[in-house]
Amino acid sequence: MAKIVSDEKLSLFVAKIFQAYGLHQKEAEICTSVLVESDLRGIPSHGVARLKRYTDGMDSGLIRADARPEIVQEGPSTATVDGNGGLGQIIGHFATELAILKAQDTGVGVVSVRNSNHYGIAGYYAQMMLKKELLGISMTNSAPLVVPTFGKEMVIGTNPISLAAPTHKQEPFFLDMATSVVPRGKLEVYEREGKDLPEGWAVDESGKTTQDAGKVLQNMLGRTGGGILPLGGEGELFSGYKGYGMAVMVDILSGVLSGGAYANRVYAKKEGKTIPPNVCHFFLALDIERFVDLEVFKQNMDDLILLLKNSEKAKGQNHIFIHGEKEYENYRNHKRNGIPLQEKVYQILESLGEQHNILFDISK
Amino acid sequence: MAKIVSDEKLSLFVAKIFQAYGLHQKEAEICTSVLVESDLRGIPSHGVARLKRYTDGMDSGLIRADARPEIVQEGPSTATVDGNGGLGQIIGHFATELAILKAQDTGVGVVSVRNSNHYGIAGYYAQMMLKKELLGISMTNSAPLVVPTFGKEMVIGTNPISLAAPTHKQEPFFLDMATSVVPRGKLEVYEREGKDLPEGWAVDESGKTTQDAGKVLQNMLGRTGGGILPLGGEGELFSGYKGYGMAVMVDILSGVLSGGAYANRVYAKKEGKTIPPNVCHFFLALDIERFVDLEVFKQNMDDLILLLKNSEKAKGQNHIFIHGEKEYENYRNHKRNGIPLQEKVYQILESLGEQHNILFDISK
Repeated sequence: MAKIVSDEKLSLFVAKIFQAYGLHQKEAEICTSVLVESDLRGIPSHGVARLKRYTDGMDSGLIRADARPEIVQEGPSTATVDGNGGLGQIIGHFATELAILKAQDTGVGVVSVRNSNHYGIAGYYAQMMLKKELLGISMTNSAPLVVPTFGKEMVIGTNPISLAAPTHKQEPFFLDMATSVVPRGKLEVYEREGKDLPEGWAVDESGKTTQDAGKVLQNMLGRTGGGILPLGGEGELFSGYKGYGMAVMVDILSGVLSGGAYANRVYAKKEGKTIPPNVCHFFLALDIERFVDLEVFKQNMDDLILLLKNSEKAKGQNHIFIHGEKEYENYRNHKRNGIPLQEKVYQILESLGEQHNILFDISK
Repeated sequence: MAKIVSDEKLSLFVAKIFQAYGLHQKEAEICTSVLVESDLRGIPSHGVARLKRYTDGMDSGLIRADARPEIVQEGPSTATVDGNGGLGQIIGHFATELAILKAQDTGVGVVSVRNSNHYGIAGYYAQMMLKKELLGISMTNSAPLVVPTFGKEMVIGTNPISLAAPTHKQEPFFLDMATSVVPRGKLEVYEREGKDLPEGWAVDESGKTTQDAGKVLQNMLGRTGGGILPLGGEGELFSGYKGYGMAVMVDILSGVLSGGAYANRVYAKKEGKTIPPNVCHFFLALDIERFVDLEVFKQNMDDLILLLKNSEKAKGQNHIFIHGEKEYENYRNHKRNGIPLQEKVYQILESLGEQHNILFDISK
């Protein structure tokens, strides 16, 4: 059963939790916005359901609530940012604003970030650039959960890529995708529902594809072999090395280019002890006007979208989706009718409120 | 049966063919190099086997051998290039050199290109940037052969993405991948060998996956419905919308950003008549030193590669490949032992030599 909550009341509540950790109001609002926007867009796995992980991180000191990002190297179009182990959302927001300013100034802004934490949905930052009518790209590496082609050890993250591009009358194009075939959350859903996994989603401790969601999740937890497959699946038959290659590309642009961590050096342990995860991001903003007239770009985006949408449908299908379309619809629906929050998530938020003595009133 | 040919003699011959179309020696060498490098790397589908398509294009006027690319808009880090319908290799080379200069000057070079033609392997241009110790990205849109998720009409190209990054002792990372699950050439191999296609490679005229390579190829030729699936395959189960999304991303960065063609406006017909294909490219060069010490970057690239290579193998596997590894090995092998050229390709080259009165002597 889900509780229906108001995004506005939810935001006020979550922001107060972040403020309880010493964040200024503006910072707390940024962190909150990244989470609540995910719920609004229908991506609850990256929404307020994660709040407890962030507060746990701040409680343990693995996420430093008092750390602020700093620019360690800078040129007119480029920057390297050190997150100093702070909150990923504050760091991501800072780096994106920097990329936006550089793009507005020189046509391009490229910012690579090290020593950050989980920054929420990659798309949040691409959307920030979109709001300034820029073409925005955002990527991040992440906890190693994915096996490389022919491997059985989780060495790479689900390393998502997001791109947002403005349009004229159509809704903006908004791609936000992990480079793995599925996220871990999808395996959890199959386990809960007692369903067999499709072959080609995940491998077991032998490195072979398996239908046993429970076994995979247990192995992943213990890191005893096996994990999620890259986009394209097992082996080379469906070109799994392409998803694997895209994931490494994200690691290079974020982790290696920033001088931070990559592959399974992200969320690594040192001498058996948990250390800050050193998550790394990459942002690219392009000022469209420096390449082509912005109105021409937007009208051609509309045209591109309509060419795709209006093309002939496969038998039994009546709709070709454009990236972002489902999320925009969820957003409108959840804004109007409230966000459905899992009972368990609702209770966790309630107890966080008690713990920090913050009034818990989020019902729609 | 394959003929074994010398890459050096092959290059001399192919360059003379291009010169016969009025190209200067340097330009002819660029066009030749893109083709022969493909053969050396073991990608014969994009090698000299395509020469006839280029000469046919120049003969018919669809590729303008006399056209030269020009910069139509420019900033310190950005440029839009109009290829004026010339040879894709000359245009790609020109735009990449421009991206390199801008990256060396400002840290980043972003060049979007319109009105070009097929430019060969995307990786050639990423390798040009790599040779300057830059991080190089190259993308291109292409003839529409791929159906969007839930569609059955070929609206998007196989739109490849390439990234090359320098290393210390390891071979450079070199990703060069189509965003479709397979290239058309793979279907042709299955048809020749009378093998069933794996389900999830291509769809028939109903838009459903099929094992019949012959039918798919025939439908593709007549554009009567069906085509290749995006990376991730049919429908949403294996996230085919991600490959579809990557392909649209390439179209946006190359076709829409440059003010050129995209989706099935590339290689489109106008009033039943074939018109110049208006292929578009995108190049991004990053000067690593502007982000992190180059030696640190290279050593971390080595480390990343070894983390992947040395991770545990799936049962029955003893090797995890790094992107580019197979191509580098092919290159060394073909440099030493000669390039194996299909009899049919050899004969086509021979007759091109006769046609242009150029001595045909390419044997190893």
